[in-house]
Amino acid sequence: MTSDVVKLAQSLIQLPSVTPEDAGCQKLMNRRLSAIGFDIEEHFFVDTLNTWARKGNSAPHFCFAGHTDVVPTGDESAWQYPPFDGQIHEGMLHGRGAADMKGSLAAMIVATERFVEKHPDHKGSISFLITSDEEGPFVNGTTRVVDVLEARDEKIDMCLVGEPSSRSSLGDVVKNGRRGSLTGHLKIKGKQGHVAYPHLASNPIHKAAPALAQLSETVWDHGNDYFPATSFQISNIQGGTGAGNVIPGVLYVQFNFRFSTEVTEQELQDKVHDILRAHQLEYEIEWKLNGLPFLTEPGPLLDVTLAAIKEVTGTIATPETSGGTSDGRFIAQTGCKVIELGPLNATIHQVDESVSIEDLDKLALIYELILEKLLT
Amino acid sequence: MTSDVVKLAQSLIQLPSVTPEDAGCQKLMNRRLSAIGFDIEEHFFVDTLNTWARKGNSAPHFCFAGHTDVVPTGDESAWQYPPFDGQIHEGMLHGRGAADMKGSLAAMIVATERFVEKHPDHKGSISFLITSDEEGPFVNGTTRVVDVLEARDEKIDMCLVGEPSSRSSLGDVVKNGRRGSLTGHLKIKGKQGHVAYPHLASNPIHKAAPALAQLSETVWDHGNDYFPATSFQISNIQGGTGAGNVIPGVLYVQFNFRFSTEVTEQELQDKVHDILRAHQLEYEIEWKLNGLPFLTEPGPLLDVTLAAIKEVTGTIATPETSGGTSDGRFIAQTGCKVIELGPLNATIHQVDESVSIEDLDKLALIYELILEKLLT
Ligand SMILES: [Zn+2]
Ligand SMILES: [Zn+2]
Repeated sequence: MTSDVVKLAQSLIQLPSVTPEDAGCQKLMNRRLSAIGFDIEEHFFVDTLNTWARKGNSAPHFCFAGHTDVVPTGDESAWQYPPFDGQIHEGMLHGRGAADMKGSLAAMIVATERFVEKHPDHKGSISFLITSDEEGPFVNGTTRVVDVLEARDEKIDMCLVGEPSSRSSLGDVVKNGRRGSLTGHLKIKGKQGHVAYPHLASNPIHKAAPALAQLSETVWDHGNDYFPATSFQISNIQGGTGAGNVIPGVLYVQFNFRFSTEVTEQELQDKVHDILRAHQLEYEIEWKLNGLPFLTEPGPLLDVTLAAIKEVTGTIATPETSGGTSDGRFIAQTGCKVIELGPLNATIHQVDESVSIEDLDKLALIYELILEKLLT
Repeated sequence: MTSDVVKLAQSLIQLPSVTPEDAGCQKLMNRRLSAIGFDIEEHFFVDTLNTWARKGNSAPHFCFAGHTDVVPTGDESAWQYPPFDGQIHEGMLHGRGAADMKGSLAAMIVATERFVEKHPDHKGSISFLITSDEEGPFVNGTTRVVDVLEARDEKIDMCLVGEPSSRSSLGDVVKNGRRGSLTGHLKIKGKQGHVAYPHLASNPIHKAAPALAQLSETVWDHGNDYFPATSFQISNIQGGTGAGNVIPGVLYVQFNFRFSTEVTEQELQDKVHDILRAHQLEYEIEWKLNGLPFLTEPGPLLDVTLAAIKEVTGTIATPETSGGTSDGRFIAQTGCKVIELGPLNATIHQVDESVSIEDLDKLALIYELILEKLLT
């Protein structure tokens, strides 16, 4: 028999909410939250639907956060089962968003329904911060709802983001932070010319090569107990007109830092400038800070989460800060403690995304237990 | 009063022979050569018209070589005078091809007419090797006519190519050789991945940077009395998917050598392989030899050319091997001595290409004097 969690996850998968579309997912969730006493606010910014739903006004204020949008399917004919069908085969729920993160959303809703039914007079507050712009440019989603809350001085104390954190078995990994992400768009200037007259030109590729070598080899920090060492990667490089006999006048290089709490954005920028100047390059850089690092150190939220995972699955979870960025960074910036816990991420963003229905049911139990431990 | 040389140059400019079009230029030239006793062969290969015209059968065999095709005009509205008008203003003949090299072609024809009129029974032979594919891929032009001549064992002893060799004043520079040109298309392999998981990827830009730095700094030879040192230039580099969070799997680098007679093509290739292997790169290279270096050492042709320049202009010309490649390399490969002498190259391949009409008249005198000195 299909559980309530899995049924709701199926219904959400059947709404084809390719980013930034919500496709009715939030309406479906909000009807159920409204029925158990949540106040619902919908915030539509530009192309993105966001929901802020809250039950209760007192502290502690615990928030479930997540997104209804999914990444595109690619070639649908490459899928074993249609990506927006939500079919179940051999214990797996199939479809785009099954693991990232409509399964988690269903588990949050059902866990909250069960908790509120058992504890109608629970202490504190429960809220949902849901966006349809996590897989896109994350401009009109969580960050703008956080701005609304900040403007009216509404504080979240603890937040659980339902991103698929698990690696090999449900709950083996939780994210208790994320690295920062800093991108640089570097333009190195030379002087265009003909390869037959190199003395009249200045080749920016030749000038840049030793500097890029040094940047690639630099140790930026050694990380710490919670963060791996900061990493630098060149993602794009482009120089040349396409013609084989022209020395280009400009070289474009795009690079990205994933950085720990051991360095600041400013320190990284300064060090890059030092290296480029030491190689006497004429250059410009445009910086883009995609997110600051955040860390939720051991304390009530992390302790309770680890305990709930242990009770339901027997697993002792490892807190990690690895991987990409998530919307957790926007919420963490307000001073809120943030943890990420969701199902296995093995198939996310891929063809044949799927999630174990047993894991979804267990995830709902873990979420419910976290509410029990924090709000009763 | 417009001279015969300038009138013919004007007529040639008015035929818009953008490469590989000939647009009637060779017909016009060949009518005049035919009238003074030349045998005319037209060789059309694929898209290219070539002329082989010869007067006389004995040695020494002196050849004028050149091309009727011109590079495109670009935006015609950017030109001060229409590029195919051949207008004269303040002593300058304007138009695409004025300097490269319809002015030289006109000077060759008129010089030959005058010489043949004065010396109907000159010794040796005079020929013209003219193509409409010098500015293009040079596949169906001079090189194929040379093949025809080689196949029937027809030898040229000395050749004057009319490429615009002069730098600041007419005849200040002649080319007595050209460097070789060798291009490499290098593909450096890594492993694609996400910037957040660099340990699962291998960044080919990071791996290549120190090798590219070393290639840029390497001294390949020191040149010799006739050749500058061999030069290495990276003309194009491209790596990355465009996405800022993806470590690319491949880096593409295109580079070019201009090389002296002090190194061979094979030595350069070996040295590049040594450097890439020393940096433990996984890579592939496709090589393209665009031309071998050639050199016409001091001897009758060079001596006579320098003397003729001196007599007409008072200038002592400098023999050089600098600059790009020319069709001279194909003719030199047969063992023929090759010299390049033409007007100032300051405006070639540019908007508002132009040539001094006084220089064109003098160039015809120099060409005529060379015929006098070699064939009477
Ligand atoms: Zn997600
Ligand atoms: Zn030319």
